[in-house]
Amino acid sequence: MWPDTRITDLFGIELPILQAPMAGSQGSELAIAVSEAGGLGALPCAMLSIDKIRAEMGVIRQRTNRPVNLNFFTHTNSEPDAARETAWRKRLAGYYAEFGLDADNVPAGPGRNPFDEAACEVVEDTRPEVVSFHFGLPEQKLLDRVKAAGAKVIASATTVAEARWLEEHGCDAIIAQGAEAGGHRGIFLEDDIASQPGTMALVPQVVDAVSVPVIAAGGIADHRGAAAAFMLGAAAVQIGTAYLQSPEAATAPGHRAALAEARDDRTVLTNVFTGRPARGLVNRIVREVGPMSADAPAFPLATGAIGPLRKHAEAAGSADFSPLWAGQAASLGGTRPAGEFTRDLAAATLKMLGRS
Amino acid sequence: MWPDTRITDLFGIELPILQAPMAGSQGSELAIAVSEAGGLGALPCAMLSIDKIRAEMGVIRQRTNRPVNLNFFTHTNSEPDAARETAWRKRLAGYYAEFGLDADNVPAGPGRNPFDEAACEVVEDTRPEVVSFHFGLPEQKLLDRVKAAGAKVIASATTVAEARWLEEHGCDAIIAQGAEAGGHRGIFLEDDIASQPGTMALVPQVVDAVSVPVIAAGGIADHRGAAAAFMLGAAAVQIGTAYLQSPEAATAPGHRAALAEARDDRTVLTNVFTGRPARGLVNRIVREVGPMSADAPAFPLATGAIGPLRKHAEAAGSADFSPLWAGQAASLGGTRPAGEFTRDLAAATLKMLGRS
Repeated sequence: MWPDTRITDLFGIELPILQAPMAGSQGSELAIAVSEAGGLGALPCAMLSIDKIRAEMGVIRQRTNRPVNLNFFTHTNSEPDAARETAWRKRLAGYYAEFGLDADNVPAGPGRNPFDEAACEVVEDTRPEVVSFHFGLPEQKLLDRVKAAGAKVIASATTVAEARWLEEHGCDAIIAQGAEAGGHRGIFLEDDIASQPGTMALVPQVVDAVSVPVIAAGGIADHRGAAAAFMLGAAAVQIGTAYLQSPEAATAPGHRAALAEARDDRTVLTNVFTGRPARGLVNRIVREVGPMSADAPAFPLATGAIGPLRKHAEAAGSADFSPLWAGQAASLGGTRPAGEFTRDLAAATLKMLGRS
Repeated sequence: MWPDTRITDLFGIELPILQAPMAGSQGSELAIAVSEAGGLGALPCAMLSIDKIRAEMGVIRQRTNRPVNLNFFTHTNSEPDAARETAWRKRLAGYYAEFGLDADNVPAGPGRNPFDEAACEVVEDTRPEVVSFHFGLPEQKLLDRVKAAGAKVIASATTVAEARWLEEHGCDAIIAQGAEAGGHRGIFLEDDIASQPGTMALVPQVVDAVSVPVIAAGGIADHRGAAAAFMLGAAAVQIGTAYLQSPEAATAPGHRAALAEARDDRTVLTNVFTGRPARGLVNRIVREVGPMSADAPAFPLATGAIGPLRKHAEAAGSADFSPLWAGQAASLGGTRPAGEFTRDLAAATLKMLGRS
């Protein structure tokens, strides 16, 4: 029925539609809805404690027997750099003053946890069908254990070189993440965001470069983008932003409001929220401090000092200091339930491909 | 036969494939080859004298009776800014010294001519079937004369807002120029390149926003990209970089050599060659002075001071100071004759669309 069944066969899923993991904006509920609809739901684990991952996987296994994707970041946690921390606090000092906050007493913000021994144990215990990594892959010993636990391993490539690297290091499939994509760029071999290719250019070049199946991501939010991805040679699509307004997502009210008014030309790559470039809608902090700030501490340390500003602003009903992650096709997204959206997307895509 | 015939009907062409005008890298020969093959060939006029445009159109009319596209820039020529010129010369002084060139005696470089009264007369005399504009549209009086001369008018939009503006101002079709595209960004309502959407995200949003047909451009270099563009809702594609290595193009040897080794992740938007952001392969001047330099004089004035460096380097067989315009899908291009490439592209695209 689908023009390419390599991904559906590999993961044992019905529809070649992967829900992109979106740390901070969703948990098990969205993953369950997408997996139950026949796609591949994903649980983003980067901001969850080990106990929470375990609990969320328990909920998922209870509510669906379909395959699911656990997603982890694979960065190396940086040691704080005192000079950079000072510069960052100084850059933000005006906002602290404006809100009457104490700049000298900022609690450590919500970090991001890289995939480690403890996370690997959860994988071994809960046996997700698919494990995805962002920012490269974990060390070989852990990767081997993930594979030994039966998981298919996928990861994001933002360039052909990264796709080749991921295939050589054992990925079963590659997510080709075009520059349009919302959230963190998966970039890991270099750090030059100016030369990151868009989905239309990236996907066919990755398809030509690797022999494993390719999952297209970035700027895909409806059946037109999904059908286009298949034409480019992708065997599946990964969609994030289009799920952010669904009732099953845990997207904050201010984020939802911003998404409802999203435009094609109002997202940028910014490092002000975490220290790594990620695509989101422009708001006050991005406009005034970013989009890319040389003062921002290394990922994920930039998050700490933004935290109190965000908390204060959100309490006042403002999203001026919140990360409003979104891809460039955010305006095509809607508020429909995730399962219904997934099924209708699949049907409309098949129709466009002349295969319904 | 094609899923959408609005553009082929509008222009009176056989294939929905437009050759993107590429000033400095092609003349009548490429345009003739593409038009004769059934696509729409284009003559870029921005760097040609009025006499040369007239002569080239004479050659075109002699060698093909198929429709052709004359292309013009619509910028306003800036008055030189002494402070910025000084800063720019200072920025480049080291290179002048390295090559033993006289920095105080730089001739005015090859400018770019905006569409004006004289160019309009050529349009009225030679009656091109299609006239395309880059950087917006000319003043209404000239635009009316172009239309009265029987030309269909098209222009590039880099955002939905620009597409709406162009439709409101009378364009018969819109080129949706995604961020992947090589050469100058058509951006004209704003100047923020950080928020420019990629083709995958831009095309469907433009299609939803305007009622005239949409031509997809950016990152399209083979049948996969062309078929994807139709899925996104485009009625035609515009392809530039993939023609640059054809024998009919006038692409410089150093540029051809760079294209032959092009990678997905080795182009950037740079203003160092002209003052406006344009996508090209990274070379020495881009790496060391750009990619975006605040010192570069306004378009097209930056070109002047680069000229002698380029001339000197090219004479020594180096492309270190030459603009190596290229889109992000440059690696998919080849060296085949333009007519053959156009016909085969059409056939392969129809096959992918299940319509051959």
